[in-house]
Amino acid sequence: MSTVFNFSAGPAMLPKDVLVKAQQELLNWQGLGTSVMEVSHRGKPFIELAEHAQATFRSLLSIPDNYHVLFMHGGGRGQFSAVPLNLTKNNQCYADFLLSGTWSKGAVEEAAKYLNPRIVANTEQVDGILSLPSQESWNLNPDASYFHYCSNETVDGFEINHVPDVNGKPIVVDMSSNILSKPIDVSQFGVIYAGAQKNMGPAGLTMVIVRDDLIGQSRMETPSVLNYEAAVKHDSMYNTPSTFAWYIAALVFDWVKEQGGVDAMAEKNSAKAQLLYQAIDDNGFYVNKVAPEFRSRMNVPFQLIDPSLDSLFLQEAEKEGLQALKGHRIVGGMRASIYNAMPIEGVQALVDFMHDFVKRHG
Amino acid sequence: MSTVFNFSAGPAMLPKDVLVKAQQELLNWQGLGTSVMEVSHRGKPFIELAEHAQATFRSLLSIPDNYHVLFMHGGGRGQFSAVPLNLTKNNQCYADFLLSGTWSKGAVEEAAKYLNPRIVANTEQVDGILSLPSQESWNLNPDASYFHYCSNETVDGFEINHVPDVNGKPIVVDMSSNILSKPIDVSQFGVIYAGAQKNMGPAGLTMVIVRDDLIGQSRMETPSVLNYEAAVKHDSMYNTPSTFAWYIAALVFDWVKEQGGVDAMAEKNSAKAQLLYQAIDDNGFYVNKVAPEFRSRMNVPFQLIDPSLDSLFLQEAEKEGLQALKGHRIVGGMRASIYNAMPIEGVQALVDFMHDFVKRHG
Repeated sequence: MSTVFNFSAGPAMLPKDVLVKAQQELLNWQGLGTSVMEVSHRGKPFIELAEHAQATFRSLLSIPDNYHVLFMHGGGRGQFSAVPLNLTKNNQCYADFLLSGTWSKGAVEEAAKYLNPRIVANTEQVDGILSLPSQESWNLNPDASYFHYCSNETVDGFEINHVPDVNGKPIVVDMSSNILSKPIDVSQFGVIYAGAQKNMGPAGLTMVIVRDDLIGQSRMETPSVLNYEAAVKHDSMYNTPSTFAWYIAALVFDWVKEQGGVDAMAEKNSAKAQLLYQAIDDNGFYVNKVAPEFRSRMNVPFQLIDPSLDSLFLQEAEKEGLQALKGHRIVGGMRASIYNAMPIEGVQALVDFMHDFVKRHG
Repeated sequence: MSTVFNFSAGPAMLPKDVLVKAQQELLNWQGLGTSVMEVSHRGKPFIELAEHAQATFRSLLSIPDNYHVLFMHGGGRGQFSAVPLNLTKNNQCYADFLLSGTWSKGAVEEAAKYLNPRIVANTEQVDGILSLPSQESWNLNPDASYFHYCSNETVDGFEINHVPDVNGKPIVVDMSSNILSKPIDVSQFGVIYAGAQKNMGPAGLTMVIVRDDLIGQSRMETPSVLNYEAAVKHDSMYNTPSTFAWYIAALVFDWVKEQGGVDAMAEKNSAKAQLLYQAIDDNGFYVNKVAPEFRSRMNVPFQLIDPSLDSLFLQEAEKEGLQALKGHRIVGGMRASIYNAMPIEGVQALVDFMHDFVKRHG
């Protein structure tokens, strides 16, 4: 079949090289005569893989020594509960939340089971364009245990590229959809978490980076599988981890390193995003309603000026091998997710198609 | 390389046919040009897979219509928390537990975070042989919300083949290591749960079968990813499920069906277990210390009469392609896990090796 480009928001495209290697060794990993899926997580071969994965991940993000790296169950949404459960011993009652879209809203709703969330600011539409009020207007709570935000909202295509200043409170960030897409300064955060299924591997694995002093603050009712302290103590193997997802993530980390690390990723991702937003802006036929400084480099939602052409657009795109471009059911329209694994050729193919579609239907 | 038999307790051996199919279509699933790992769980192809998997699983275990089948995160241990959280609304305070080994003990310890567990009975050694006191002596609590036990203990090789009579209380059973190994009468249970990584697929997926009337009994503090009601309402897709593990499980379910279903599995598993226990009993060189009626058909722990030969046994076995026979670190010695995917040829190879080892070192 001809080349296919998969713009799915997650589970998402993986690097071809990773899949080829996984396929080659699927029945005989490390010459053991068994699949990596079949070996014990407590055996030497898997432990070596696990340690290698962690070391590569640490090196990619320059994670300081006073941070733990955990490989956990439960997806990003599992962390919506894990964060309040792990950070508010003695049932501390307050945490601050920045609302920038669907996922940060989900985090607030879940946290409300455990504490009183305060929404310190919310995205707002100014002349139909989505933006974020400047930080001076935020309503921070001095009694908050932590501050939570989502650095990239997949549904809304809203990315926050600066780290908010919240008077020294621990900052918790959901980086599910932009981790490893650019360099970050880990030392600015208390907790970073991310479901694997966008930039790291298959669904079912969650990466958590947590500062040492925040360990041991969990509530009694924290389920063990969501407990950071248990994960630290047992090297993320308090119970059987998602070993195959861990293995694929290890291959993806190696691949990112081979590509030149997160600096190279950032450069490629910017080029891809620029190409696509330009095609949206130039034609007068498509529209993206996010303020330029918050436009996501990972998820690019766009509408046709004439929404009656949406289904034709999607249908024709699909025929050209441009898959999964349908926007999230909440917002409709189109969305192109262009994570690390999407090559610029994929974006170019989409842009070419968009221009061609204008010629034929404009 | 020559044939390898993997006796790992979990993650464990998978059917060869399943792995071959997974390998073949790893880069191009359903002719889509993408891997099954890369597609959205909300797209039509994956939804069809998910529904097919559930239908096959239901048919294999003849699951009545008033039971829900959930595909969840968090492993068996996640259910150690999920069960008390989901079944004791209004913070009901009591539940009964049968203690038959390492895993049922883990379930008690976790439940104690949420309620007062009563241990109604404990396995006991009679003349050095592990057994279970008869049910008349059990100390059931009339105020218990439910009764919990583990139908097969992997570490101790202790399997309970009858369903206890607990005066009509909902019975919750951890079937992680013997689900799909024989027919069961689902209607006898309130909740059945099982981590996938023994008889169903890769680690990171947990199957839960729950009776309809037990839904909606969850505590407020139940994390959404462990909440049965949320899973029911969203077809196990409240958050992104472990899609690849779900896919492999679907292939395993198909394979079990092709093999003749759980009746055929039960027959094969009994034959395998009989062959192995006979080799242990006949030689006078090996010993298994579980009462015959509780000997596990899935995990067969055994010791050498002369434990100084343990490491030689394991070393020589490994050379013969008989892998992962080392007993759990808690009990030492040897353990052969012989789940559904282990062919009788594997058990025969082990038995032949055991006889040969006696000849050479007996």
